[in-house]
Amino acid sequence: MKKLYFLFCLSVVLACVSVASAQKKNFAIEELVSPRLRPTAIWDLTWRAKTDFVTYTDNATGNLMLRNAQNGQESILIKSGELDNQLPQGVSSLSKGVYFVQWQNDQSLVFSHDNRLFEYNTNAKKLKQIAFSPENAANHDQSSAQHWAFTVDENLWVCPQNATEPIAITQDGNRDLVYGQSVHRNEFGIVKGTFWSPDGQKLAFYRMDQKMVTDYPLTSYSTVPAQNAPTKYPMAGQASHHVTVGVWNTANKQTVYLKTEGPSDQYLTNISWSADNKSVFIAVLNRDQNAMQLNQYDAATGNFIKTLFEEKNERYVEPEHGLLFLPNNPNQFIWQSERDGFNHLYLYQIDGTLVKQLTKGAWLVNEILGFDVKGEELFYTSSQVSPLEKHAYSLNLKTNKTTQLTAESGTHDVQLSHSGKYLIDNYSSRQKPRCIQLVDIVKKKTTTTVLDAPNPLEAYDVPSIEFLKLKAEDNTDLYCRMLKPTNFEQGKKYPVMFYVYGGPHAQMNTETWLGGADMFMLYMAQQGYVVFTLDNRGSANRGFDFESIIHRQLGEVEKKDQLKGIDFLKQQTFVDASRIGVFGWSFGGFMTTNLLLNYPDVFKAGVAGGSVMDWSMYEIMYGERYMDRPEQNPAGYAQNNLVKAASKLKKRLLLIHGLQDDVVLPQHTDAFINECIKNGVLVDFFPYPNHAHNVRGAERAHLWKKIFRFFEDFVKPL
Amino acid sequence: MKKLYFLFCLSVVLACVSVASAQKKNFAIEELVSPRLRPTAIWDLTWRAKTDFVTYTDNATGNLMLRNAQNGQESILIKSGELDNQLPQGVSSLSKGVYFVQWQNDQSLVFSHDNRLFEYNTNAKKLKQIAFSPENAANHDQSSAQHWAFTVDENLWVCPQNATEPIAITQDGNRDLVYGQSVHRNEFGIVKGTFWSPDGQKLAFYRMDQKMVTDYPLTSYSTVPAQNAPTKYPMAGQASHHVTVGVWNTANKQTVYLKTEGPSDQYLTNISWSADNKSVFIAVLNRDQNAMQLNQYDAATGNFIKTLFEEKNERYVEPEHGLLFLPNNPNQFIWQSERDGFNHLYLYQIDGTLVKQLTKGAWLVNEILGFDVKGEELFYTSSQVSPLEKHAYSLNLKTNKTTQLTAESGTHDVQLSHSGKYLIDNYSSRQKPRCIQLVDIVKKKTTTTVLDAPNPLEAYDVPSIEFLKLKAEDNTDLYCRMLKPTNFEQGKKYPVMFYVYGGPHAQMNTETWLGGADMFMLYMAQQGYVVFTLDNRGSANRGFDFESIIHRQLGEVEKKDQLKGIDFLKQQTFVDASRIGVFGWSFGGFMTTNLLLNYPDVFKAGVAGGSVMDWSMYEIMYGERYMDRPEQNPAGYAQNNLVKAASKLKKRLLLIHGLQDDVVLPQHTDAFINECIKNGVLVDFFPYPNHAHNVRGAERAHLWKKIFRFFEDFVKPL
Repeated sequence: MKKLYFLFCLSVVLACVSVASAQKKNFAIEELVSPRLRPTAIWDLTWRAKTDFVTYTDNATGNLMLRNAQNGQESILIKSGELDNQLPQGVSSLSKGVYFVQWQNDQSLVFSHDNRLFEYNTNAKKLKQIAFSPENAANHDQSSAQHWAFTVDENLWVCPQNATEPIAITQDGNRDLVYGQSVHRNEFGIVKGTFWSPDGQKLAFYRMDQKMVTDYPLTSYSTVPAQNAPTKYPMAGQASHHVTVGVWNTANKQTVYLKTEGPSDQYLTNISWSADNKSVFIAVLNRDQNAMQLNQYDAATGNFIKTLFEEKNERYVEPEHGLLFLPNNPNQFIWQSERDGFNHLYLYQIDGTLVKQLTKGAWLVNEILGFDVKGEELFYTSSQVSPLEKHAYSLNLKTNKTTQLTAESGTHDVQLSHSGKYLIDNYSSRQKPRCIQLVDIVKKKTTTTVLDAPNPLEAYDVPSIEFLKLKAEDNTDLYCRMLKPTNFEQGKKYPVMFYVYGGPHAQMNTETWLGGADMFMLYMAQQGYVVFTLDNRGSANRGFDFESIIHRQLGEVEKKDQLKGIDFLKQQTFVDASRIGVFGWSFGGFMTTNLLLNYPDVFKAGVAGGSVMDWSMYEIMYGERYMDRPEQNPAGYAQNNLVKAASKLKKRLLLIHGLQDDVVLPQHTDAFINECIKNGVLVDFFPYPNHAHNVRGAERAHLWKKIFRFFEDFVKPL
Repeated sequence: MKKLYFLFCLSVVLACVSVASAQKKNFAIEELVSPRLRPTAIWDLTWRAKTDFVTYTDNATGNLMLRNAQNGQESILIKSGELDNQLPQGVSSLSKGVYFVQWQNDQSLVFSHDNRLFEYNTNAKKLKQIAFSPENAANHDQSSAQHWAFTVDENLWVCPQNATEPIAITQDGNRDLVYGQSVHRNEFGIVKGTFWSPDGQKLAFYRMDQKMVTDYPLTSYSTVPAQNAPTKYPMAGQASHHVTVGVWNTANKQTVYLKTEGPSDQYLTNISWSADNKSVFIAVLNRDQNAMQLNQYDAATGNFIKTLFEEKNERYVEPEHGLLFLPNNPNQFIWQSERDGFNHLYLYQIDGTLVKQLTKGAWLVNEILGFDVKGEELFYTSSQVSPLEKHAYSLNLKTNKTTQLTAESGTHDVQLSHSGKYLIDNYSSRQKPRCIQLVDIVKKKTTTTVLDAPNPLEAYDVPSIEFLKLKAEDNTDLYCRMLKPTNFEQGKKYPVMFYVYGGPHAQMNTETWLGGADMFMLYMAQQGYVVFTLDNRGSANRGFDFESIIHRQLGEVEKKDQLKGIDFLKQQTFVDASRIGVFGWSFGGFMTTNLLLNYPDVFKAGVAGGSVMDWSMYEIMYGERYMDRPEQNPAGYAQNNLVKAASKLKKRLLLIHGLQDDVVLPQHTDAFINECIKNGVLVDFFPYPNHAHNVRGAERAHLWKKIFRFFEDFVKPL
């Protein structure tokens, strides 16, 4: 549930600290969405190519700053607005800074602005426009040869360097046939639809034929009368789209389609180029998602060359990472796989022969950071220290020697410098809003601190945020987070907001700022609630067995694990077990409704937003991975079909849904409401007519108000 | 607002009595929709043509009964199921009775069953099928010559007597072009789309071109995935449909269209035939609805013959009744008009010359019942006794002598016998559930009682139902109804359910069973609420000035009048003025929201269902009559635009809307909710996904539960 998780994350707006004080104030509910209360960030922080310098935009001035990782020396590289006089006529000012620069080499940076791609030479101080696109272009992707690919509506275009006109690679795109965009509803690690070869001379791209995919009739309320705004939605068990991969050649301007034979509803995932620009690799996954073949295709002819290897699993295989070729050996690549139970790294020959497993253990690799300049040291982050933390490591490919590179307890987002000698270490922890340091790997020391963000909640009364470890019925560790009410008094009993997500690919409790808690949770603690969250089996970052136990029975194990949290709460003298309200969104809405229906003696009331109510109405890619197709698993679909169970509802339930939701369709909530009506059961509902799978922006404060009032009305009263 | 009123009426399920008793019980909320609690009715009660006998279906046996109006003698005319052995093969049994018979003459009755039209000769005891239609046929209309007209989808067909195949009168019908159906959204008294000439040889029918009318994108939730279910909805100020009238001739099977020149968005209302079958009359109303021409057309050529007369009014003209020719003089007809301020009867020559005004006074004619066999006496009902009652009268066309024919206080629905000597008098009053008597007009006595319905609420504790008369600011009488709580205790203060409708063409308080109160109001009185309802200016049955004062300012006068009810309530010692909740549906939802927004100090909370929130999103016909077009009356539209005022909401408001509502579109409520969200204002909402402008059938109990809980949560608590 990449998508659900992704959107969930957006909802988890950051902020806070664990020392309460009597003089400190509470939040106004409208403040919860304020950027002021989030830790300061630095935009655009990146390594200058082939150097050990970083560049970034200064928040205050908009200047592009340069800093030496070796000694921390800082200077202005480009003053805000400095390039304005070199801009073509009619292009808007750059005075707000040059954002999201990409370094081509140590003196050439590239950035896009006003539908144009610019290159700036820092030595010559010369700016030039190298490509352009129409105003309605999207999905821009720039090649190393300075070609700019983009989509216009459903067609794919490219603007070669210094061309006077862009070239249409495809022309027959429409709602039913989409080129150059992400496919398979962003599952399998797919986030884009264009893939330049390393030399920038060939462009692999997705073609998605979705004429056989049913429309769901969303309605847009932005006009009077409202308008039909249908969205293609492939529902579990129904017809899926047909994806193929084309390769367009900048030299002859021709497209060749790869001969990806097999059923039209298979998944073409993790497109990768060989280092010699001649082959394209695709992790081809069957619709059942239990068998993957890593296939090689000839980029010039489209011919299938060979299957390097297969991966199978009775539950599911979920490839999410492409091939990464060694910089010093184009015939070897690193492959990530969960095949031994945890996501680990494997070194392969290009012919498909396994050289060796590089990492191993009851922890998982989060991401590969890169190599040193010689290609001898591999850098990655992993959960080895704790499932709650993320640290960076280096691994010598020859000696297998592993070195931990980050020390501070917390979650480290790391970028490796060109030389492999320095890291940008951007980390946070429950106590640390955000710290960005440049680290000398060899000397194991911080050379300079780019940002040590002040506590944005300094003026506020912030609850204590505790982590706990409970045991599942099979003795598995389950991590929990508990916020106690501010102004906590011994001997008093408090109501609970039991917050649940519970779905795969997400982890609520992490050693990050506020422990992953969002501002609304802090608010509720200020309002006198205990706020509790448990990451059940099925959630992320704990390995394949932990996550995949939910297979064919979504909701079943998750419920049991959540009840362990309830058992814990009931034992706490400060908890009033008769006043536990549950709240969740998306998969968490499914969990909330499920818990409330099945444990009316435990929960007093619930708020479920954007909830899946019947997995047969959820999308094919995510849904069938966990549940198989409805006809393959009728019992599993029936077991936690909440629509069918709606008549069991005994407690107050507030359902919320964005009427533009194209992830969890509004029909989930409508069907549940209808079943309630049919059975004479009362339920509450609130729609956000202009919002999709989540309530974003300033209007999110309205959502918090709504949920808070519901808790005050129906959970808090004794 | 014919439609709104009509639907509202359906919601007002009947029942009750005004003597409370300690032993009597309260309703279970699920019972409120039970037919058991409604007064017994008799289906199919009608005069046998050319006789003074009535026939009707016996509720218990399904037998078709015959009763002599002269002496009350009763016999079985057709035993239930008696005709089954004469039915063609494959036709389902008639054992449940012959419903809705129409008498052709004293020995021939006609009825439809299983998509067939049957004739039964009561002397010969012979049944024969005379016409048939496909299963999906609708809008059946039978001529005096036994032709059966009907529609299939959007085309018009006719099945001549004994034909082997029906004939398609039109073939190019589709969603954009509709034949033979009601037009102008059932305003102007229009309820059907076919009009047979008196001799049954010609069929006038509506043709409605609505390609220029915008679609509103309703969504049907009866399938997975949901489906787009667009409805043509002509919104105030927008393009309206183009209606014309065809005349199909049974002899030559040709259609001629009447040459109704003028703007395409004019209204063609009240189609009537001349007695000689040669002319068609149409009351042609301009889109501005302030000028009507009564036009005569040649049915054979379609040519315009002449305009008989015009009616104009600065506010609006609203023709709702066709021409009624005198049986003994085909050159004279009766016309109904509000031109003198009340709906009265006018006798005209066919050339358009006014002979005389037949009725006059500060009261109105409700309907014409017919003539005696000589055509000398005219019978009608009127509000002459009281706006709360309806009584029957005879009027001698020569002498102008008027005689009141019904005596009992109440509302009399009356059918006149062929001879004009007898009436079916079906009446009810606050105390009388339903009484059906046959009355000898000459002897002024009841000859027999067909039904004296027992009190269906005998076992229940029923509140007192009082009528009151208050004064508007201009001293106009305003009638009110008040239910006091059952178990009323002196000295105690009660919360109030202030029920409001308030729109034109509806009257809440009438001298009918329970005074027009519905079962939910009785339930609320049992639950300890005072239930109060006031018919403000603008409501029905009080004449043109009273009703049309709302012109160009819907909501304005109505609000002021409703506050007079509040003033009264505040003076009552048993009323707790701090606990007044307001509830209304449709126009009443508009009023509820309007009152709550503007008088937050008066009302504690409100429930508004199917509410108009912005008249510019309501339909052309009703909307422009009262408000003119938005560009003609921007101030009037703005004045009570509740969407724009949503940010003023200070009290609890529960909005309810049927998602299939094609009368008041769901966008009204969505727009209001969006405005609340935008302004950080909390509001509640509940949808009925499968219901249209009202919640019908068994699921209506769910609606009552929902509203009751809201009042218990947010009105009742001290």
